[in-house]
Amino acid sequence: MNNFVFHNPVEVYFGQGEIKHLARLVKQYGKKVLLVYGKSAIKRMGLYDEVLSILSSNDIAVVELGGIDPNPRIESIREGGQLCKDHQIDLVLAVGGGSVIDAAKGIASAALYDGDPWDFYSYKTSSDGALPIGAILTLAATGSEMNRGSVVTNFTTREKHGWGSPYTYPKFSILDPTYTFTVNKHQTGCGIVDTLTHVYELYFSTDKNHLNDRLCEAIMKTVVHYGPLAIANPSDYEARSNLMFSSTLALNGLTGFGKTWDGFNHTTEHVISAFYDIAHADGLAVLGPHWMRYVLKEDNVQKFKEFALNVWNVDNTGSDLDIAQRGIDAVFMFYQSIEMPTTLQEVDIDDRELETIASQATRHGNIGNFVSLSEQDVLTILRNALN
Amino acid sequence: MNNFVFHNPVEVYFGQGEIKHLARLVKQYGKKVLLVYGKSAIKRMGLYDEVLSILSSNDIAVVELGGIDPNPRIESIREGGQLCKDHQIDLVLAVGGGSVIDAAKGIASAALYDGDPWDFYSYKTSSDGALPIGAILTLAATGSEMNRGSVVTNFTTREKHGWGSPYTYPKFSILDPTYTFTVNKHQTGCGIVDTLTHVYELYFSTDKNHLNDRLCEAIMKTVVHYGPLAIANPSDYEARSNLMFSSTLALNGLTGFGKTWDGFNHTTEHVISAFYDIAHADGLAVLGPHWMRYVLKEDNVQKFKEFALNVWNVDNTGSDLDIAQRGIDAVFMFYQSIEMPTTLQEVDIDDRELETIASQATRHGNIGNFVSLSEQDVLTILRNALN
Repeated sequence: MNNFVFHNPVEVYFGQGEIKHLARLVKQYGKKVLLVYGKSAIKRMGLYDEVLSILSSNDIAVVELGGIDPNPRIESIREGGQLCKDHQIDLVLAVGGGSVIDAAKGIASAALYDGDPWDFYSYKTSSDGALPIGAILTLAATGSEMNRGSVVTNFTTREKHGWGSPYTYPKFSILDPTYTFTVNKHQTGCGIVDTLTHVYELYFSTDKNHLNDRLCEAIMKTVVHYGPLAIANPSDYEARSNLMFSSTLALNGLTGFGKTWDGFNHTTEHVISAFYDIAHADGLAVLGPHWMRYVLKEDNVQKFKEFALNVWNVDNTGSDLDIAQRGIDAVFMFYQSIEMPTTLQEVDIDDRELETIASQATRHGNIGNFVSLSEQDVLTILRNALN
Repeated sequence: MNNFVFHNPVEVYFGQGEIKHLARLVKQYGKKVLLVYGKSAIKRMGLYDEVLSILSSNDIAVVELGGIDPNPRIESIREGGQLCKDHQIDLVLAVGGGSVIDAAKGIASAALYDGDPWDFYSYKTSSDGALPIGAILTLAATGSEMNRGSVVTNFTTREKHGWGSPYTYPKFSILDPTYTFTVNKHQTGCGIVDTLTHVYELYFSTDKNHLNDRLCEAIMKTVVHYGPLAIANPSDYEARSNLMFSSTLALNGLTGFGKTWDGFNHTTEHVISAFYDIAHADGLAVLGPHWMRYVLKEDNVQKFKEFALNVWNVDNTGSDLDIAQRGIDAVFMFYQSIEMPTTLQEVDIDDRELETIASQATRHGNIGNFVSLSEQDVLTILRNALN
């Protein structure tokens, strides 16, 4: 087992009705909130009204920044940071999914920075502070509610970068599974794929770590079990709560201790969706199983065999390679069963930009820690994924 | 899934050589440390000298309190609290196993309390603060390094109570698996049993929680896999590190979210070891499998079947009850294989005090949340465990 630091200060309130803690939590940090949210979802479900009512009845002033995009843009970070400065905001409260929480992290950091916040995401400067951040989660997917990461897109430069600082952990996150009852089939599928990808990009590692592998399998098994149940019955509380906390644990440090992140899937997908603005998880669903098929080799067949048997419960007859391939087939079939794409064609991407994407994805050199992949390897995976 | 709060502020530094962070971590809190430790183990392994050398070369003053007992006593808490007051200590640094860390938590709280610290453990008062606590772990067992719990014995009143406050989480814990290379066979076995018991007292629950169950199984599988390897080769780093972090995760909140603690095993064992001063885990090893045999019923057979198949990998033929019983047999055989006792006779306890123990264990009413047990049930389990 490799050395690691394990520390996560986020306070999570999980379960139906936990919004009852909101006013107390906010008031620990002040009386003026920037409310950050996305499109109309939280208004449709009544959560917007509920949050405003709780805040106003507790004499907490609210400035609003709605309309955060699914791939949040640097323009929103700039705007939010300026609002914080103009209105002397005490806490940035994100109400939404991972994109909204990611945006809140950038905004809270921009609020205490004199330059352009793209400096953080382009790694030109580090941050030395942020306003306190709170989150109310409405989508089980990114894990942003319990980590410091923030992914923001700059469509001017066609770049999508992940970043975070010691100050961008939310102080608190409220996770009420009933808020995800209205999430539609495709978005639920996206959350399932995002969670699984977060886990398997750490599970598939050359770092030996039995405990971590078993914990990763525990989360993946839960997602594979409950994903289809949540899609079949969107108000299944048990399914929604298992998916929600699985997505949180998938990227809060638990699946990563002592492990090196593989990174192929996320790195390549960020390039794809900076070009095409497709849903992040659609890109991940296309890439994941094709990546597995490409990197499966003699020397890592044991790991794929464990994955096949322990997560997908496949038939254990035949050679190790047979079993390993059966596991990868199961990923393809699972994604198809929840109506997620497994080819680029399904997300309207043809072969025109593939060379540029492969080149961008490997602009700093080979990618992938489990199996190191060159520009040519990435291009081959993309071509294999065409249709 | 039941509602829960998930929050653990402890900063864990895991792996060989992580003591390099010690001076920096201590200096965040001050320049004067109460060094709390047990008997001679940390001196024999050279850790005592190393810690003193790091502290003195960083101008950190040290007051010492050695000799903490394996079942730490309230007298040590009183003495340590007084030392903190007399010497204006800034941080209580525990170097040792769970007992030493438990003592440090009591001492750090006593340091800021005017009354007798037994008031905490007898639930007469709550604590409103504690000195900062740091820990350097030398035994993989109790999980105290990443939780707020502290168990202390009062031999005058023959009581052993667990207690904790929001202030008794260590600020940091250094977990170096090489510090456990010198732990002998019996103490390694005790750690294994303690960890498994922490997990199965939460695993066996009537609360439905798929994700939590799978995570519990992940930890138990790891302990069952590596326990015998660590006993066979005490310097097996991979085995020691997996056991160490398993014991930490077993009682840091991860295995408990949304679950009600069963409590039979720990409650009854605390009474036994307040009477007999046997090793805590010897008592747990005796009680655990006998408890399972007694509580296994038609209506919980599915849970025992999952335990048997997913943790112990038993043959899955026959009736559900057959499979469930095979799992419990596997626990007996596993404990015997690592030379842990599974009868009271082996720890020199006869039937003389069993009625008193059963009565004490149930003094507040039935115990056990998975299956509620009366005084008579407890007595029957104890008698079944005699030999």
